[in-house]
Amino acid sequence: MRIRNVKNKKEILSNNSCFIDNPMSYKGKWNKCFGNNNPIHLEIGPGKCNFIIENALRNPNINFIGVERIDSVLAIGVKSIDSFIPNLRLINYDANKINDIFSNEIDVLYLNFSDPWPKSRHAKRRLTSLEFLRKYDLIFKSKKVIVQKTDNESLFAFSIVSLSNYGYVIEELSLDLHNCLKNDNIETEYEKKFASKGCKIFMLKATKN
Amino acid sequence: MRIRNVKNKKEILSNNSCFIDNPMSYKGKWNKCFGNNNPIHLEIGPGKCNFIIENALRNPNINFIGVERIDSVLAIGVKSIDSFIPNLRLINYDANKINDIFSNEIDVLYLNFSDPWPKSRHAKRRLTSLEFLRKYDLIFKSKKVIVQKTDNESLFAFSIVSLSNYGYVIEELSLDLHNCLKNDNIETEYEKKFASKGCKIFMLKATKN
Repeated sequence: MRIRNVKNKKEILSNNSCFIDNPMSYKGKWNKCFGNNNPIHLEIGPGKCNFIIENALRNPNINFIGVERIDSVLAIGVKSIDSFIPNLRLINYDANKINDIFSNEIDVLYLNFSDPWPKSRHAKRRLTSLEFLRKYDLIFKSKKVIVQKTDNESLFAFSIVSLSNYGYVIEELSLDLHNCLKNDNIETEYEKKFASKGCKIFMLKATKN
Repeated sequence: MRIRNVKNKKEILSNNSCFIDNPMSYKGKWNKCFGNNNPIHLEIGPGKCNFIIENALRNPNINFIGVERIDSVLAIGVKSIDSFIPNLRLINYDANKINDIFSNEIDVLYLNFSDPWPKSRHAKRRLTSLEFLRKYDLIFKSKKVIVQKTDNESLFAFSIVSLSNYGYVIEELSLDLHNCLKNDNIETEYEKKFASKGCKIFMLKATKN
């Protein structure tokens, strides 16, 4: 995906109270940043933030943090926040260095429509690779919960095998999420676009004690 | 699927040396039936037996047993055997009673294009339900290996969750088997028909120690 540069992205980000520009200083104490001990749900790669904003609004008793690598994309997301959302924080950071900013405090991790990195030599970069699963071990509070959505067949197959081999149990799985009956699904921007074209959306929830 | 009745099915079966009409008498000692200690691979529901016959011919050092509930279907399979295949045995039996005929002797179990039993109230009848996984525990020699192929999205999703929850690790998985590169896949009759219509074929290999 080509990323459109957003002018004044730095100002857009730093002027929004949900944006945190010194995330490392909260490592291990994000509950203080929120001022409560509610569960913390993390999304890596929230993009334009539809999913995480809607989730935060619907679930005021859960704290949400989004970690987005691309500042221009995050700035677009931040612009769509009308007024301060007390249970939402957004960070511009590289997920490779996730252990710089979290320690034993995350309850649920969302991976929505992550880059599939289709070439084998780039497998380590996929957000469900062994390398990332090891990093996540250190950020979860106790029980590990990962929820993934994607329209990419190969990434989804890779994720099932990788998570299962690492000791995760696949508790829920759909190969056509939008065709399920009971569905309180919150769509990402990407999901909305691709599902409307008839692409199937895959979803899994995996847990590890 | 409506099953065409095959006239003389009893004679067709009993006249073929690969057909075993007293499978219970071999429980725990199928190696004696084959006259060797080669690994035993079991297929539940071999249908017209394309897959198991081809597998047996390609792998003379593995013993193959097919357990098919419907005698007319098995008779069609048996008719396609030109000459005795020493590493193949076929049985007309109900998989629900699989523990009547095997005990601690199976190395690999194949479940190809099994009935998806789409209604929730029939979930127990699916060949990857908890009820069946418990039965399989008693037939495997040591390491449990299940290989499943299906074109049914719901059955495949159900199987992943069921196997994973029961302690199986999903070691291999494809959401489009016929689009993979290295492919020594042996097609079933059903698979040939549906793949040629453009249906995606799902495959997994799950193991449990």
